[in-house]
Amino acid sequence: MKKKVVMAYSGGLDTSVAVKWFIDQGYEVIACCLDVGEGKDLDFVKEKALKMGAVKSYVIDAKEEFAQEFVLPALQAHAMYENKYPLVSALSRPLISKKLVEVAEQEKADAVAHGCTGKGNDQVRFEVSIKALNPDLEVLAPVRDWSWSREEEIEYAKEKGVPIPIDLDSPYSVDQNLWGRSNECGILEDPWAAPPKDAYDLTAELEDTPDEPEVIEIEFEKGVPVAIDGKKYKLSDLILLLNSVAGKHGIGRIDHVENRLVGIKSREIYECPGAVTLLTAHKELEDLTLVKDIGHFKPVVTQKLTELIYEGLWFSPLTSALQSFLKDIQQYVNGTVRVKLFKGHAIVEGRKSPNSLYNERLATYTSDDEFDQSASVGFIKLWGLPTEVHSQVNKKDAVKQ
Amino acid sequence: MKKKVVMAYSGGLDTSVAVKWFIDQGYEVIACCLDVGEGKDLDFVKEKALKMGAVKSYVIDAKEEFAQEFVLPALQAHAMYENKYPLVSALSRPLISKKLVEVAEQEKADAVAHGCTGKGNDQVRFEVSIKALNPDLEVLAPVRDWSWSREEEIEYAKEKGVPIPIDLDSPYSVDQNLWGRSNECGILEDPWAAPPKDAYDLTAELEDTPDEPEVIEIEFEKGVPVAIDGKKYKLSDLILLLNSVAGKHGIGRIDHVENRLVGIKSREIYECPGAVTLLTAHKELEDLTLVKDIGHFKPVVTQKLTELIYEGLWFSPLTSALQSFLKDIQQYVNGTVRVKLFKGHAIVEGRKSPNSLYNERLATYTSDDEFDQSASVGFIKLWGLPTEVHSQVNKKDAVKQ
Amino acid sequence: MKKKVVMAYSGGLDTSVAVKWFIDQGYEVIACCLDVGEGKDLDFVKEKALKMGAVKSYVIDAKEEFAQEFVLPALQAHAMYENKYPLVSALSRPLISKKLVEVAEQEKADAVAHGCTGKGNDQVRFEVSIKALNPDLEVLAPVRDWSWSREEEIEYAKEKGVPIPIDLDSPYSVDQNLWGRSNECGILEDPWAAPPKDAYDLTAELEDTPDEPEVIEIEFEKGVPVAIDGKKYKLSDLILLLNSVAGKHGIGRIDHVENRLVGIKSREIYECPGAVTLLTAHKELEDLTLVKDIGHFKPVVTQKLTELIYEGLWFSPLTSALQSFLKDIQQYVNGTVRVKLFKGHAIVEGRKSPNSLYNERLATYTSDDEFDQSASVGFIKLWGLPTEVHSQVNKKDAVKQ
Amino acid sequence: MKKKVVMAYSGGLDTSVAVKWFIDQGYEVIACCLDVGEGKDLDFVKEKALKMGAVKSYVIDAKEEFAQEFVLPALQAHAMYENKYPLVSALSRPLISKKLVEVAEQEKADAVAHGCTGKGNDQVRFEVSIKALNPDLEVLAPVRDWSWSREEEIEYAKEKGVPIPIDLDSPYSVDQNLWGRSNECGILEDPWAAPPKDAYDLTAELEDTPDEPEVIEIEFEKGVPVAIDGKKYKLSDLILLLNSVAGKHGIGRIDHVENRLVGIKSREIYECPGAVTLLTAHKELEDLTLVKDIGHFKPVVTQKLTELIYEGLWFSPLTSALQSFLKDIQQYVNGTVRVKLFKGHAIVEGRKSPNSLYNERLATYTSDDEFDQSASVGFIKLWGLPTEVHSQVNKKDAVKQ
Repeated sequence: MKKKVVMAYSGGLDTSVAVKWFIDQGYEVIACCLDVGEGKDLDFVKEKALKMGAVKSYVIDAKEEFAQEFVLPALQAHAMYENKYPLVSALSRPLISKKLVEVAEQEKADAVAHGCTGKGNDQVRFEVSIKALNPDLEVLAPVRDWSWSREEEIEYAKEKGVPIPIDLDSPYSVDQNLWGRSNECGILEDPWAAPPKDAYDLTAELEDTPDEPEVIEIEFEKGVPVAIDGKKYKLSDLILLLNSVAGKHGIGRIDHVENRLVGIKSREIYECPGAVTLLTAHKELEDLTLVKDIGHFKPVVTQKLTELIYEGLWFSPLTSALQSFLKDIQQYVNGTVRVKLFKGHAIVEGRKSPNSLYNERLATYTSDDEFDQSASVGFIKLWGLPTEVHSQVNKKDAVKQ
Repeated sequence: MKKKVVMAYSGGLDTSVAVKWFIDQGYEVIACCLDVGEGKDLDFVKEKALKMGAVKSYVIDAKEEFAQEFVLPALQAHAMYENKYPLVSALSRPLISKKLVEVAEQEKADAVAHGCTGKGNDQVRFEVSIKALNPDLEVLAPVRDWSWSREEEIEYAKEKGVPIPIDLDSPYSVDQNLWGRSNECGILEDPWAAPPKDAYDLTAELEDTPDEPEVIEIEFEKGVPVAIDGKKYKLSDLILLLNSVAGKHGIGRIDHVENRLVGIKSREIYECPGAVTLLTAHKELEDLTLVKDIGHFKPVVTQKLTELIYEGLWFSPLTSALQSFLKDIQQYVNGTVRVKLFKGHAIVEGRKSPNSLYNERLATYTSDDEFDQSASVGFIKLWGLPTEVHSQVNKKDAVKQ
Repeated sequence: MKKKVVMAYSGGLDTSVAVKWFIDQGYEVIACCLDVGEGKDLDFVKEKALKMGAVKSYVIDAKEEFAQEFVLPALQAHAMYENKYPLVSALSRPLISKKLVEVAEQEKADAVAHGCTGKGNDQVRFEVSIKALNPDLEVLAPVRDWSWSREEEIEYAKEKGVPIPIDLDSPYSVDQNLWGRSNECGILEDPWAAPPKDAYDLTAELEDTPDEPEVIEIEFEKGVPVAIDGKKYKLSDLILLLNSVAGKHGIGRIDHVENRLVGIKSREIYECPGAVTLLTAHKELEDLTLVKDIGHFKPVVTQKLTELIYEGLWFSPLTSALQSFLKDIQQYVNGTVRVKLFKGHAIVEGRKSPNSLYNERLATYTSDDEFDQSASVGFIKLWGLPTEVHSQVNKKDAVKQ
Repeated sequence: MKKKVVMAYSGGLDTSVAVKWFIDQGYEVIACCLDVGEGKDLDFVKEKALKMGAVKSYVIDAKEEFAQEFVLPALQAHAMYENKYPLVSALSRPLISKKLVEVAEQEKADAVAHGCTGKGNDQVRFEVSIKALNPDLEVLAPVRDWSWSREEEIEYAKEKGVPIPIDLDSPYSVDQNLWGRSNECGILEDPWAAPPKDAYDLTAELEDTPDEPEVIEIEFEKGVPVAIDGKKYKLSDLILLLNSVAGKHGIGRIDHVENRLVGIKSREIYECPGAVTLLTAHKELEDLTLVKDIGHFKPVVTQKLTELIYEGLWFSPLTSALQSFLKDIQQYVNGTVRVKLFKGHAIVEGRKSPNSLYNERLATYTSDDEFDQSASVGFIKLWGLPTEVHSQVNKKDAVKQ
């Protein structure tokens, strides 16, 4: 009996060739394509898989599940890899893995396959996620295994009747979902070179952005963005709307030389207009509503969670425990943030909340002041005491500073 | 014999009144004014102190010492309080304290005085620093002690012949040095209100910035910015130059609801054109030259150092130990960063370094690839093993994710 | 109308004098005494308060609530202040505060009072906790306020008919609950002096411990110790039983020079036989059942939670968020730990669990080995790649190491 | 021309067979054996290597270099893997790697070889270290490559005339250096089984320890233990002496289920009498001499450094930066610690230091008290303010606690 493989199918050259190649190797192929917000023509992809010889072709609109289960925790965590960019691809991989495993279990398949090469992060994310969800499934990586040059792959494609995409000449390697778009390769491999215009797609050039700002109000409930300018949206729609609105103002371009999990540095550019706008607004609301203790400890949780996600460990039990921490504090993150979108900036101009810890009567320098200034004297005395005693004891050291 | 006090003197109303008040209390007052890059007229301040009745009036140009000893470590640490703004005032306080103590020791004074109220951070920074440097000096805080209303203070000033400043109506409370300018009070006390135009001084409104970008190259040696467009500058001059150039493009405006050390939240705005430009460029160079281990651990050091500085503990021995860590890694931070200044953005377009760890032949997806893709198979197997074993053992938990 | 105060009453000299003193000041006093496992004679304390003049005298057996709500999180966190001792007093203070507030609200009292002096941690813990639970209650600290010398206090006591305790000559200051016993003062204030025999009470001198070990099995369910040698106990009883059994073997003596919150170092000794035994056993079970990710991150949570508890911030919302993290991971901590109690040691000799991640077939060096050793080659290549590239680029630096 | 390999040679079966095997493969073998404190007969090992066919045989007494350059930083860091055991083997691997590279460069060898299998940590430590020191050297792992069963290896050995050790039946796998002894395999692979007596070698059974304690005084200068009972020793001798003295009292037995770098858990036992005694004493001295800031931040540095060392990254530049931090604070760690060695315990009974921050006049509860208790009132007010405001705003949440 033929072995069955569920292939993560995008409709592009690599995965189309892979379908053919699996069939050549004697596999029965089930294609599986997800929409995680990149605006795919699912009907086209579904048909193409069948044309390539897949016995079945699944297409799944996973946008809202992606937004709720994967993007939202990253938003609430303020997850920015290397303090630089929202996790984009790293967030969709565990979801895709989960769906592949579900299809594989339903179809009683023997294996699951992805189209990654051997030098990126995504191979790790897919394989670790799939093994975590079902250790009995074999994981195959045909593109990594066949190690063809581009020319060899095209030759094989032609021979097997795989259509060659018209954008084959594009020097870039792009991945996109509703949390953003990543781009690498080509001229971008030179970290001294400025990214050319055509490397970007979701965001306007600063030079082309409107000369009038646009001011929006984003409303959060328990850390979830639920409305814009008073109108409710489901999360995936809200993010896609912001991608469009903020993208028009050139918001969310990021250019990063990053440390990959596999030990090398790579230079990539990102466009995350919705993500950057929401991350900025959410942080402002937290600054207003969370006590200092939390504000100063949360970055530790953020960094660990960000690393886990980036490094393919979404299904580690630590991810879940860190999310419990985050969920607990989101109960306070209610309110409205007013954001001015202008010339590449998402500028928070105002924030208000029923949970606001900002107390004007404590903060003010006017006569409404309720702060007990005399308390400061004792506070300072004890606050500085260890340093003072240290200096007394180690005088010479203190002086040399 | 009269008691001698060295007063941190700014030339403003509070400290001028304080000089008079000290004299009333029977003190001999020595005024001491520092220029840390706020562009003060030192001659005027010197004279004014003497007119107020000070027996001596010190004025000290501390710009380069401030840049080298206090600003540079903060730049290299990427110190941003609450991941939001460079430390501005928190950096100048320990330097001013140090100078006050030096003058007090030289003049054999009994006490040192500052003009802070009882609800800000600066009182803590001054008092802890002074006590650390010389625990035998008394520290006085006349403005905190007399607890006058604005009206009472003005009445006293008039009575004693202290000139009332023409900007007395200004609702704002400003502090400035070469690393930036902070502003609070007035309408800014309402966190829902947008800061009005007149709250800013160092930076142009986005609407008024040039429509042509300006591209500069910043050169770093061991983490120190040493040249712009090939021309060498001493550090304080380089920062002041960038304040002017980047300020023109509207770079470095920050609006923050922050947690003060004394237990309250306050809303402040900052303008840090030079700081933001340098911090951005320096981080890019580190991203290129430091290994991932360092890149991912450094934020821990950064956060602790930032808190120590903000919280008045510059002279804690921990500050020194954290700086030893940072100094060790700056040896690799050499190279040039190309920055495009435009519409409020300092956009790094290119970076290069003799210590660059970016290796195009490892990163490339072209045929020049030297990366051993087959190594990934073993890597992924072991990397995911703990999560896989966990899932096998705790199956139900894995599934529920 | 008289003001009402609820006084935390222990039956000792300080709080008995305080009752009298409050009455002198015109207060109506309601005494409130908790048993948190120190083995108090509650009837005696209740009566004594009334004799002192209290209008009401509450006595509350809070042992099980203390064990479940305060001790258990500290056990599961492995909370050891400065990596040295379980938190003992710091854990009972928030509970006592909570009870005082409950009584105060029920009795419509105006104030709550504690018997702490002005230089310890407990005043902070009481006052911050009470303010967090009910900011409208006044908090009074008569002992801190009256600042009497020992002699003055005794004179006042005699005058007012407060019985002088027979152990008044004891040089020590002791606090005890079911999680341990702390002792300071007297000869212990000399950190070079060995603590004398009479400083200890719960634990046998090593010289006097049995020459035969005692082996017990402790069973945990979701991180909660539920049975010893197969017999179920409620948590407070289980801890008290272990205090007795492990105390007999001299387990849990700790001698520590610690950093108090109020800025000074103090030297204290602790006896925590049950706590040390349970903490040791619980950690062993976690080592067996938790993935490395969690094992290596949990200490960060532990340290922060420990500091919060020590520093009086039990009711900070961060405490709650950290507990959510801990609760999430405790689901895996099931199993049995075999402990040998002998000569001051709680030695874990064996551990087993249905959630054990130890896999003998992966770990073994026998022919049953299922570990894929060939995977190591690729793993090591990528694991070491950043360091290797760093060395190639920065050769001179690598050599000098 | 023959290829040259420098083989890390121990004199045991594996590495002896490896020498023969390399010769069979056409290599010229240079043996290299280090003494890092395990008490090896270097002359015997040297001769044996030559008998096996090595063309040269290096033996190097590296004890003092090991103590100074590798053990001392681990002592000062309080490096305990998973808060459980000193790093033992992880510390010697980078030193051995360094010596192998030095010999290889001197002998112009093509490759360096170690005798590790494919499932331990040591293969990683050797290979990453060697690649960091000289990326041009090939690293060979014959034992991992040949993947023989024990029987096959013995057959090969007999055939090639490699002497079979008399302790071949030992079920254990042991590694030792002056910082301790590790043992795994055999019955130890069952985590429920108590380690049998014969698994230990450096430490007496508790049952067999002297009934009289032994009290020693250890003197530290800048964090370095320099003398015992007033007599100076060089560091390696001091540690070896303590191994003997503390081992006699049964100190330093550790039984641990640990997370290996290669993704599995293993159960190992350790004996570290000298290490445990010194680590205990050094921490006590730090508790006396370092400010709270440092004491509470150092564990973060410790944990990262410990992980780096365990994970084979000694030559990462992060290791060096963390050591700069540690070196900076060791300047204060001077003084003497009195330790009672008794029944498996190293009990610190007293500590004193010229840098002591313990101030009896601040700490005392006697009339010598110099602490300003009134300062506590203001301190507590501001310390608790954020929690208080949080409770006021979020009342319901506070109550539910």
